[in-house]
Amino acid sequence: MNFETMMNLFSRRGILFPSSEIYDNHPSGFWDYGPYGATIKRKLVELWRSEIVKRTKMIEIDGSICMDADVFRASGHLQSFSDPLIECSKCGSIFRADKLIEEVSKEKAPEAMAAEKFDEMIKKHKIKCTNCKSELGKTRKFNMMFKVSIGASKPQDAYLRPETCQSIFADFPRLIKVMKKSLPLGIAQVGKSFRNEISPRNATIRAREFTQAEAEIFFDPNNAEVKNFEDVGDCVLNLKSMKDRGDYLAVTAKEAIEKKMMSKFAAYYISILQSFLLKCGIPAEKIRNRQLDDEERAFYAKESWDTEIKTSLGWVEIVANNNRTDYDMSAHGKISGKDVSVVNPETNEKFIPHIWEISMGIDRLFYCVMETAYKKDGERVYLSLPAYVAPASVAIFPLINKDGMPEKADEVVEKLKKEGLDVETETKDSIGKRYARADEIGIPFCVTIDGETSSDNSVTIRERDTKKQERVKIKDLARKITELVSQG
Amino acid sequence: MNFETMMNLFSRRGILFPSSEIYDNHPSGFWDYGPYGATIKRKLVELWRSEIVKRTKMIEIDGSICMDADVFRASGHLQSFSDPLIECSKCGSIFRADKLIEEVSKEKAPEAMAAEKFDEMIKKHKIKCTNCKSELGKTRKFNMMFKVSIGASKPQDAYLRPETCQSIFADFPRLIKVMKKSLPLGIAQVGKSFRNEISPRNATIRAREFTQAEAEIFFDPNNAEVKNFEDVGDCVLNLKSMKDRGDYLAVTAKEAIEKKMMSKFAAYYISILQSFLLKCGIPAEKIRNRQLDDEERAFYAKESWDTEIKTSLGWVEIVANNNRTDYDMSAHGKISGKDVSVVNPETNEKFIPHIWEISMGIDRLFYCVMETAYKKDGERVYLSLPAYVAPASVAIFPLINKDGMPEKADEVVEKLKKEGLDVETETKDSIGKRYARADEIGIPFCVTIDGETSSDNSVTIRERDTKKQERVKIKDLARKITELVSQG
Repeated sequence: MNFETMMNLFSRRGILFPSSEIYDNHPSGFWDYGPYGATIKRKLVELWRSEIVKRTKMIEIDGSICMDADVFRASGHLQSFSDPLIECSKCGSIFRADKLIEEVSKEKAPEAMAAEKFDEMIKKHKIKCTNCKSELGKTRKFNMMFKVSIGASKPQDAYLRPETCQSIFADFPRLIKVMKKSLPLGIAQVGKSFRNEISPRNATIRAREFTQAEAEIFFDPNNAEVKNFEDVGDCVLNLKSMKDRGDYLAVTAKEAIEKKMMSKFAAYYISILQSFLLKCGIPAEKIRNRQLDDEERAFYAKESWDTEIKTSLGWVEIVANNNRTDYDMSAHGKISGKDVSVVNPETNEKFIPHIWEISMGIDRLFYCVMETAYKKDGERVYLSLPAYVAPASVAIFPLINKDGMPEKADEVVEKLKKEGLDVETETKDSIGKRYARADEIGIPFCVTIDGETSSDNSVTIRERDTKKQERVKIKDLARKITELVSQG
Repeated sequence: MNFETMMNLFSRRGILFPSSEIYDNHPSGFWDYGPYGATIKRKLVELWRSEIVKRTKMIEIDGSICMDADVFRASGHLQSFSDPLIECSKCGSIFRADKLIEEVSKEKAPEAMAAEKFDEMIKKHKIKCTNCKSELGKTRKFNMMFKVSIGASKPQDAYLRPETCQSIFADFPRLIKVMKKSLPLGIAQVGKSFRNEISPRNATIRAREFTQAEAEIFFDPNNAEVKNFEDVGDCVLNLKSMKDRGDYLAVTAKEAIEKKMMSKFAAYYISILQSFLLKCGIPAEKIRNRQLDDEERAFYAKESWDTEIKTSLGWVEIVANNNRTDYDMSAHGKISGKDVSVVNPETNEKFIPHIWEISMGIDRLFYCVMETAYKKDGERVYLSLPAYVAPASVAIFPLINKDGMPEKADEVVEKLKKEGLDVETETKDSIGKRYARADEIGIPFCVTIDGETSSDNSVTIRERDTKKQERVKIKDLARKITELVSQG
């Protein structure tokens, strides 16, 4: 199984495919989720909501995608959210100057350098276009935000947010005032973000439009106690901390703190995240957390961990966990001129809140969950998705499309729907083909209405992974499936 | 109660407020939903999903916001999704030429006219700037789509979709091929759309970024039978058809067809919509359906009905119901050069599917639901929201913040959460203030833990609208509230 296998399945079953695909020159990096994909994605978001947002008592907002230019002046995106680009003067090939220099010369070329520095290095190493060997042009900084012009009379610049957290930062002053909550306070949001990637690739792994689920925990750095730490103390994490650059160590959250591998905040929230990822069906050995060193992490971040999932494409970064310090709120306070501080109720002193961030890419997670679930058993392909993430909980099939079976099937469908279950049904093709199609999109249970159903009021439940079949009374069906689904 | 009352409540409780609001010059027409607002909005979407999408067996997709320019060349938005604008040469005031001419001269000035025609009328009627009486400039057509530039090397124009349905049209050819469904097939989507409105106003009633829930039902015009019509036959609709331009008539869906007031498709889907709106808490007398006449409706539409809801701002259009004919798929087929036709399984003939559309604005609906729910009872303000739409199903309050009551409250919270209920809790301020705050955001039930709870294992449930209190055993609480919530 590899990336192409997955893309083939996605395309064949309409799970995920390029946006505007009927137009040959459609821009790349934009993806549409078809019915099964949209449902799985939505269920992953619901799981994030219950296992991260609600579990840790966060509040959740739903902010605009398009935001004031000043927001990104404060965040620094306007000045520095850019790639150093260089174009071949002859064939027009485009390169990231930092990557090209490092590849050809093996010398480090940090992407934040001034444009002229790149040009100097390109001259020094006599680097040419790798495609046609011609001279390269000058390096330019290409900002990756999408700009839009608002209004007709005096158009105003605004930007599509490159990360959902900026809505959270801008809304924090109102929320802390009206919500009657005290710090630490987690504010979460799921929504679209946009980045004008130079080379979108690997489908939803590097797209230009994508869904993020971000949680920003505002806290007082002088009073950063983590309540409920004991809930996660025994959670086992695969960690590689900065001070330990060897192999990954599997340690409990409690041990990680005792060994001073990470802060208590990091250990708590990364453990919460770990439990969520396990519930998504990702096994522990495919999850690792790598602390970023001084060169890798954002200049304002105090502690950063990337959570990665193993796929056929290698280890993919799914979540960025960051202690962003007071960088965000200080910057928004300064540029807006508004008071964004919080009062410590004990000392009555004002302070700018610090932030711990859990920034997750939902489309990347979607891909990893699907690839992890993909199983082959001879010719049979099935997605071993947890039942509560599957596109439907159960499929109801009349064995043949006559003798009252379709009508009985409709009856069972309505009965299960009334019990709140997600039900699919299909009557076309042989029962074998229908099982195969249900397996391929990960429906955990198939129920067959056969010739005996009308006399014994029973049906056959078939389990996806084991293919085990069991005869069940129709009256017990809803309860039975609800139980099985909640177990995953 | 009026619009200002609602905005005041929204702002005070962080339900809805301007995006990027800490920046004084933030662009208008962009709104963020705070925690209570976001939850209510999400529950409205869930209700739409169960009462419209699932009830009529539609499939649902999740497409990109940013789409290829060719999509909008085909749809006609690039050529004609524009307002005729005119600016004062002196003070810079900006006007919609059509509105200005009609206001001053009482002569009709259809917005689709060529720019020069507006200039001629302005000259003829000697119309000046209504602000400073100076000469007006020339009329220009202002396209209301937001353009973005994709990629770095050879930037490509793309647009933020002005309506979500374009994703559905572009994806239809793949979906009909892979989804094993036959026509009529409803494809639904909820997501963001963007329009560069000249004068955004009335908060979410006319915003520049907004959430739509659209359903497009693809059908064969020669075989447009409506199955399950009898499910809605007795649904009472307030209708004003084109041929009956007098008062609104309250008739059943069945009568509407017999009297030839509307097509069977219209009657079926508008009835489905009506049931949904009733479940949102909008009473029948505040819902009306107005058929658009030849001048009002889009040139390609065969039958169009606006569903409106009565508010303090007047009747607000919430849903556009349209028979879009084969306009969309023919246009996409032509511009893409792809085969977008469907085969009739009986005759084996190919045809371009026609489309019935139910296009709903979720943010507008949100406003109408909130305003309709707003009640004043002396000094007491409460939102009489259906329980399944409320931001939480129940609030748990310890009567006082000591004597083991907060701990008991936490216990009850956890118990109810395990049963799948949405639970809020608060310990600050007197019980009266906490009731008032819960009322104001529409929480239907408050549960108080008092001094006797520890001895009799009972709590008091208070109902929001009636203020009636009832003593209930803790062991029966979850079942009791679940029952009450499902009844709305």
